[in-house]
Amino acid sequence: MSELRKDPATNRWVITLDDKSFKPQTDSKLSGEIPEHDGACPFCTGNEDKTGKTIYSVNDMDGKWKVRVIPNNNPYLKVETQLKKHGVGIFDVISGTGANEVIIETGRHDMDFERFEPADIEDIFRTYRDRILDLRRDSRIEYILIFKNRGARAGAKTAHLHSQLMALPIVPEKVSEELKSSAQYYEFKGRCVYCDIIENELMLKDRVIKESEHFVTVAPFASQTPFETWIFPKDHAAHFHKLSNIELKEVAIALKDAVTRLNKALNHPSYNYMIHTAPIKEGDLEHYHWHIEILPRIKPVAGFEWGSGFFINPTLPEEAAAYMRKL
Amino acid sequence: MSELRKDPATNRWVITLDDKSFKPQTDSKLSGEIPEHDGACPFCTGNEDKTGKTIYSVNDMDGKWKVRVIPNNNPYLKVETQLKKHGVGIFDVISGTGANEVIIETGRHDMDFERFEPADIEDIFRTYRDRILDLRRDSRIEYILIFKNRGARAGAKTAHLHSQLMALPIVPEKVSEELKSSAQYYEFKGRCVYCDIIENELMLKDRVIKESEHFVTVAPFASQTPFETWIFPKDHAAHFHKLSNIELKEVAIALKDAVTRLNKALNHPSYNYMIHTAPIKEGDLEHYHWHIEILPRIKPVAGFEWGSGFFINPTLPEEAAAYMRKL
Repeated sequence: MSELRKDPATNRWVITLDDKSFKPQTDSKLSGEIPEHDGACPFCTGNEDKTGKTIYSVNDMDGKWKVRVIPNNNPYLKVETQLKKHGVGIFDVISGTGANEVIIETGRHDMDFERFEPADIEDIFRTYRDRILDLRRDSRIEYILIFKNRGARAGAKTAHLHSQLMALPIVPEKVSEELKSSAQYYEFKGRCVYCDIIENELMLKDRVIKESEHFVTVAPFASQTPFETWIFPKDHAAHFHKLSNIELKEVAIALKDAVTRLNKALNHPSYNYMIHTAPIKEGDLEHYHWHIEILPRIKPVAGFEWGSGFFINPTLPEEAAAYMRKL
Repeated sequence: MSELRKDPATNRWVITLDDKSFKPQTDSKLSGEIPEHDGACPFCTGNEDKTGKTIYSVNDMDGKWKVRVIPNNNPYLKVETQLKKHGVGIFDVISGTGANEVIIETGRHDMDFERFEPADIEDIFRTYRDRILDLRRDSRIEYILIFKNRGARAGAKTAHLHSQLMALPIVPEKVSEELKSSAQYYEFKGRCVYCDIIENELMLKDRVIKESEHFVTVAPFASQTPFETWIFPKDHAAHFHKLSNIELKEVAIALKDAVTRLNKALNHPSYNYMIHTAPIKEGDLEHYHWHIEILPRIKPVAGFEWGSGFFINPTLPEEAAAYMRKL
């Protein structure tokens, strides 16, 4: 039995099945042996001269870095580029103005969130927050996206744990769509759609994976991929960068918990996560609610998904959540 | 030097680079040795009893099938399912009503468009057209998507050449967006955006790969992936299924040409193609123009693309087109 499910926050449809024969794709590079140190890896401690200069770092008590932010080696966007919007015949072009930074999340080559202390992940999330607070002062920047590619199937070129930051001169299409749909919902209902989802899920419990005082981890109703996992702050807030220190502490615990469960459920899958947050120039929007979306990359994106923008998910989110809860 | 380019038909932004170091991912399963016949393959001639019953076929003069349409083995959507739209708490659900068919494009296991006669591809496209004409009589169907997954990276589970058809009870999100953006353009300019693109590209020539009397093959200005290739009918038409017999003949030649060039340029890459066409219940829309989009899958879709909906393309479409023209 299949059905079409709609995500009320984005109006995106998904075909969900209950296909017990589905086999997740694994990524040998993440589950195999990884050395603690790789002499050729520019992200490893001791190889700092192989990268651009440090933009920001979190250091331990001995003054050694634990988290280090560097410009992307071959950046897609540069702050030095003058912002220019122009037409080329019938087409529109904007200069590659912005920033593209790499957040190196540990000096060790073989680490994973699973083996971090929550305080280490807190340092990483504080770094995300501080980089946004710094970059948002540049008035040419319209949106700052923080994301992680983990494993080759998720687009990572190295096993060394890192995230990326893109500061963009426009608000990306998917974010605009999300804002538009949630504004529509707000106009109709007078409530934040994400607040409604959180309340609904906490009441029903069948898609809840983990709950803490300020956060809840769920398998979304219209999951695009098997074991898709979202982490929400319970209190309404549009901007990630305004999270409190208590929330910072708790989101780190929630993320470690989610990744550990995914690693167990899917044998260290490739995954992406993205911080969905309001555009930096927006105020405290009543209709938007920041959150983290984790997408295990265990199923290739095929032509149907490309052509239609909706996804076929062979695993019911209720079943994924029940499985994840038990781990 | 990077820039942001906008596709005027969809308002989708892409970051384009000129990165000579980019290495396309190949798919050994398509370039290696493939047997002419595979006893275990349900799509091979002689194994017809391994599939559901034939829905449609094109036969040769001896009565043997050349193209054969079957229901998907484990269909995502079924015509037998009663259409039901209902709410589940705050969520919306539609029953899995529709159709999911597989178009087996040859009885041989090892074939490729490159080695087909254009007349064989014409048979395949005639099959697409006839299946749409049949399925559109079901008033519950809102959209019919035809797409090909070729190679493992594009989501294909077999090397045996085939396409798929999905008849859906809703218009998919990406199609709605495309219709909305092109309607916006039409409202502003009073012209079809695709007609404008075709005229512009034929005038400039630098992104044109091939031109025939009724079709033109281009590398789109805001290509999402390296070597993305679009095939347009020159005459304005919203619906693929209304194409004339002359166009049918020519689109087959254009497709063989495009795939042959891609195979040469990228060593038999995985790719998806989708037929972009107006929803079947729409009339002859002035603002929409059917076309085929071919997406080589030589670069993984990473977190940035997922989170933002826009793409980073390391190869300039002008360079891709120049290279493809020469082959």
